[in-house]
Amino acid sequence: MANSPSGDSGLDRLVRVLETFDADRTLQTASEIGRRAGLPPSTAHRLVGDLVAAGLLERDEDHRVRLGLRLWELAERGSLALRLRQAALPFMERVQARVREHTQLAVLEQGEALFLERLSHPQAGANITRVAGRLPLHASSSGLVLLAFADPEVQERVLAGPLTGLAPETVTDAAELRRLLARIRRDRFVVAAGTVEAVSTGVAVPIREGRSGPVVAALSVVLPRGAPTAGALDELRSAAAGVEQALHPRSH
Amino acid sequence: MANSPSGDSGLDRLVRVLETFDADRTLQTASEIGRRAGLPPSTAHRLVGDLVAAGLLERDEDHRVRLGLRLWELAERGSLALRLRQAALPFMERVQARVREHTQLAVLEQGEALFLERLSHPQAGANITRVAGRLPLHASSSGLVLLAFADPEVQERVLAGPLTGLAPETVTDAAELRRLLARIRRDRFVVAAGTVEAVSTGVAVPIREGRSGPVVAALSVVLPRGAPTAGALDELRSAAAGVEQALHPRSH
Repeated sequence: MANSPSGDSGLDRLVRVLETFDADRTLQTASEIGRRAGLPPSTAHRLVGDLVAAGLLERDEDHRVRLGLRLWELAERGSLALRLRQAALPFMERVQARVREHTQLAVLEQGEALFLERLSHPQAGANITRVAGRLPLHASSSGLVLLAFADPEVQERVLAGPLTGLAPETVTDAAELRRLLARIRRDRFVVAAGTVEAVSTGVAVPIREGRSGPVVAALSVVLPRGAPTAGALDELRSAAAGVEQALHPRSH
Repeated sequence: MANSPSGDSGLDRLVRVLETFDADRTLQTASEIGRRAGLPPSTAHRLVGDLVAAGLLERDEDHRVRLGLRLWELAERGSLALRLRQAALPFMERVQARVREHTQLAVLEQGEALFLERLSHPQAGANITRVAGRLPLHASSSGLVLLAFADPEVQERVLAGPLTGLAPETVTDAAELRRLLARIRRDRFVVAAGTVEAVSTGVAVPIREGRSGPVVAALSVVLPRGAPTAGALDELRSAAAGVEQALHPRSH
């Protein structure tokens, strides 16, 4: 794709446009997109027009645009996210039916925990996780599991800091985090109380690609702080074994 | 984005590359992508390299590429698909827990039924639907509901044909289809037996955007042919009311 006079490529501009959308901002004008993406108004209008013509954005009656269903379809149907989610969903539903709080699936993406799925009971407690949202690896229970089984370079990069506290009990000391990660590798689970929000506890286990493959995802529940965790952990372990078998039927 | 000597834009080429991926083809080499997208090898290699650099594709150890999680995240987090799915999922789970076959959510997209979600019981009967997959409007129960409540122009375009038969009982006669659509508008549901596959029956209801807004989606179950449909229809109607309220809490 062609470079602009400022040197950024067409793909960079496309990514910057897409980055301006999220769950709280699904409809925007071309001018708003341009401002948020740091693009000159004329560039923003032309690019939005091109994206609408390609079906990647859709325009409503008020000339605002949203992400196109065509874009969603293209990004979803062959994705690793869909494959993991499809394998995990039946087992997540069983966890959810029994624990009745929040059940989540996350992967490591660009140094953060990216959440692929979340099931929530209508009366469940607090949980800031969103589908297609992210949390820091060192704070969330899913992130801690992903980090414990990540490449050493990824671990060292996170341990080098800064380790920002999301809540009073986030582990922000590198030596303490290193010990916690070793414990997670040994136990193959974590119970993280008050590390994302003071009012909640995350419990997470790893999901491997096949019986002895690498860890590719984390399965977690978020419980109200102080709730018993043993039952949820049993459900998660059994669900993770089911997902691993679904991902690689012949390795079991 | 710049045009190539052949006149297609960078965005067109991007869409053609993304179109080569689907659930059965998640990993490809740049050469395979180029062949399937109708791009010269040098163009395909350069474009794939640019997409990997932007994080929209990911490369594995064998130099094959897959759709990037970053692309999935950007396309998902602000999407109408996510909003509808999040509103519908708790109600779909209840339908699924009671009917124990297949429960699906679809929208009208470019003249076809695009499926946003599917829950399936491990022992459920046949069902060719896929998440982020499509079916013709005149054949699937979801498609028939979406078509019945679509703009008149969309209806006339489909009625003008060709009306291809997917199974022996797909309605392929325009006059008969017109009568069926009128009946669906009156009844607000359809039972479509053997119209997608001879062995299954689809039951679908519309979901409106708010109590009296336009129809934005169809909720359906797929049952084995000959199974009773009344219970499933009751579940679907109650679930659709719940989703409509979740989409527009104040209009109820």
